[in-house]
Amino acid sequence: MQDALSYAETHFDDFVGQLEELLRIPSISTDSQYANEVQRAANWLAEHLASIGVQHAEVIATDGHPVVYAEHMVDDDRPTVLVYGHYDVQPPDPLELWTSPPFEPTRKNGTLYARGACDDKGQMFMHAKAAEAYLQQEGDLPVNLKFVIEGEEETGSKHLVPFIEAHKDRLADADVVLISDTAMFSHDAPSITYGLRGMAYAEITLTGPNRDLHSGIYGGGVENPINALADLISQLHDADHRITIPGFYDAVQDLTADERQTYRELPFDEAAWKDEIGLDAVKHEAGYTLLECLSGRPTLDVNGIWGGYTGEGAKTVLPAKAHAKISMRLVPDQRAADIYDNLEAYLQDLTPPTMTLDFRRLHGGKPVLVDRDHPAMQAAADAVEHVYGQAPHFVRNGGTIPVVADFKDHLGLDSVLMGFGLDSDAIHSPNEHFGLDRFHKGIEAIIRFHATFAERVGG
Amino acid sequence: MQDALSYAETHFDDFVGQLEELLRIPSISTDSQYANEVQRAANWLAEHLASIGVQHAEVIATDGHPVVYAEHMVDDDRPTVLVYGHYDVQPPDPLELWTSPPFEPTRKNGTLYARGACDDKGQMFMHAKAAEAYLQQEGDLPVNLKFVIEGEEETGSKHLVPFIEAHKDRLADADVVLISDTAMFSHDAPSITYGLRGMAYAEITLTGPNRDLHSGIYGGGVENPINALADLISQLHDADHRITIPGFYDAVQDLTADERQTYRELPFDEAAWKDEIGLDAVKHEAGYTLLECLSGRPTLDVNGIWGGYTGEGAKTVLPAKAHAKISMRLVPDQRAADIYDNLEAYLQDLTPPTMTLDFRRLHGGKPVLVDRDHPAMQAAADAVEHVYGQAPHFVRNGGTIPVVADFKDHLGLDSVLMGFGLDSDAIHSPNEHFGLDRFHKGIEAIIRFHATFAERVGG
Repeated sequence: MQDALSYAETHFDDFVGQLEELLRIPSISTDSQYANEVQRAANWLAEHLASIGVQHAEVIATDGHPVVYAEHMVDDDRPTVLVYGHYDVQPPDPLELWTSPPFEPTRKNGTLYARGACDDKGQMFMHAKAAEAYLQQEGDLPVNLKFVIEGEEETGSKHLVPFIEAHKDRLADADVVLISDTAMFSHDAPSITYGLRGMAYAEITLTGPNRDLHSGIYGGGVENPINALADLISQLHDADHRITIPGFYDAVQDLTADERQTYRELPFDEAAWKDEIGLDAVKHEAGYTLLECLSGRPTLDVNGIWGGYTGEGAKTVLPAKAHAKISMRLVPDQRAADIYDNLEAYLQDLTPPTMTLDFRRLHGGKPVLVDRDHPAMQAAADAVEHVYGQAPHFVRNGGTIPVVADFKDHLGLDSVLMGFGLDSDAIHSPNEHFGLDRFHKGIEAIIRFHATFAERVGG
Repeated sequence: MQDALSYAETHFDDFVGQLEELLRIPSISTDSQYANEVQRAANWLAEHLASIGVQHAEVIATDGHPVVYAEHMVDDDRPTVLVYGHYDVQPPDPLELWTSPPFEPTRKNGTLYARGACDDKGQMFMHAKAAEAYLQQEGDLPVNLKFVIEGEEETGSKHLVPFIEAHKDRLADADVVLISDTAMFSHDAPSITYGLRGMAYAEITLTGPNRDLHSGIYGGGVENPINALADLISQLHDADHRITIPGFYDAVQDLTADERQTYRELPFDEAAWKDEIGLDAVKHEAGYTLLECLSGRPTLDVNGIWGGYTGEGAKTVLPAKAHAKISMRLVPDQRAADIYDNLEAYLQDLTPPTMTLDFRRLHGGKPVLVDRDHPAMQAAADAVEHVYGQAPHFVRNGGTIPVVADFKDHLGLDSVLMGFGLDSDAIHSPNEHFGLDRFHKGIEAIIRFHATFAERVGG
């Protein structure tokens, strides 16, 4: 392990340069115009894994974007770690807010700026570099290693479960899934994530008249779909900022006294947090703390809205249609299928007789809680403690990685979420970035994880 | 007059071809990208007026788009008619809903399809053709004629008042303003418009966090500007569909018993009206009929809304900003300046402490009522009755032509609104069109108006 650590130290500049190559490929999975770039990123990654000494690496087609699969088997008696990550990225818009182009990686004061720098190309690539350090320097790995790096995480991982099912024989012998796609609690407070929120993401359209109308001729007699959509949305929260969808909270596991204590112990500077995102005030569900609401409670957000004339100047249109994208973050044991049903029924009920509602389910993901006593969780805690000089906090994360539930359901595997992002990395926003210190510490922690995990399970 | 009527009959095909030339110029005034096209339309029109024998025609620059001014003075003892119209048009989007390209005029079953076919190139051009019929066939006109054809009607006629003030000496000797930019009550019920609604059009932006955020990391603790905007909009109407802005109705002149009787006498087929625009139900202010609400009562409509991710697929953004364009149609004696103040104060009051509100006034227009006993109103009624074989209804129109108030305020002139559009002409919508029968009848009515008006005032 020491030789691998030294290799990572001396080759760090090369590692950053290689990551920059990958970041230059705009692998935006949600936009079909970029399908070729997504494919190009997959090809690049498989070739790269082969070039660093991984025994087998291939690009496997799915009905959507491909999966990069790789494996390096050392010894059947050693434990097997399945690394999961994703090489696709979010769209970069609004483009005008980037200070450097999103697909031209730019280093500034020890930080790397690019779409995907953190989520998840940067974090995923740490696993490739940890493997390279072992393979190039020691010719061996303390564990058997498998990689499943997908290209549809940002659009709901629709074809990953079919992939897992189709390749179950190659995956089911793993002992644990290791993922770096989450954030540390803060730069000075490393953490391991034991909970994730799920997701239900819908797109709705209200249609009133059969065409856009002149608001002078028809205004006052024809109900306006935008006004009606605003009425619907405004009825989704009550004055306590609780979600009003009937049945929405029925399956929610409330936070335990123990978990609430863990939340209280976190070193959270609310003033600094608000300052960083430019807020004077917050709004969250009554009866819970801000931190609890950010990861331990379900939410509802309108992620996009559009209708009528949105160009320069004034156009007096009374539009035929208005649209919104609405997502809900779910907590155990909410099920996306039930929540979709509940929301659709409620919205149908609220839709006035002047309108028709179209409801589309875009993608869902299960919420998850992982057992903190799993040997791989403890190995991760050891590794992070060694690198950071302090024990990590166990935290819940407000985001969604649906595949964690999928790995449990389809392969019986628990996942260790050892992430090195920060909430301030602006993932999904303009000027996404990743600190090169964390890229470095992450590689070191992964190298240590493999050795410690092998030792703990006696491989 | 009979010779002019014959000329219009025999040259009608030429008239349509010339109108098509003008319709091919995309003179979209609200979009600065089309400024050259607006200028091109002005030049075309001035050259055309000169070519048909009008003594003087010129393009006069303003601080915005130019005004086409023309005059033909026959005799100082005859009355002077000032024709007002506009050569600018609304944007054509959504483009995909047009069955023929908006700027390639297409004739189908006696109807001409193009942006501006009715509003107002088609209707304005009838006045040019009526003048041509007199000048080419009789070498004379029964009235003195002036044309003020502007290029900013669709954006609030911002530079028309400065134009009127700067050229008061050329305009103030007119006896009446004659305008064809309104609709008939129906194809079988010709009408003269005696009332117009005013307008106050605002654009608002709510800003929450200082950048777009990840809804997984921040959702539940950061109030979402789209949700907050929906809350604001939903509070602008009450359950009776009355507008809730404090002071909004203070200056409203209620409909008189006489006016309400006039509304009741109109041959309105509500079922056919709903069917034509694809509606099962209407929604309007309680205490008034649908027809009254469409033109005699003030309204509030959201004409555009946008925020967050509006592209294909799912993006889990919690956006920094959300935007809406909100317009109100006003009735006498509401003043746009007061209504803006009232709306801005109310919205500021409703804006939660997590947000800041930006409020922009885009453009306003005064509501107007014209005296039905003006000799030019009676001349118009005579002309229309002759052409249609029935007396026209006097009606209020729900749209806004701010210049009608401007001509009254700055020149002391009443306006006669003798329009030949139909509500079903899809002005401001895809597939705008104008029936060639109405283009023809309109020219005939204008020829008759000039003769009748001259006779009535003894010119």
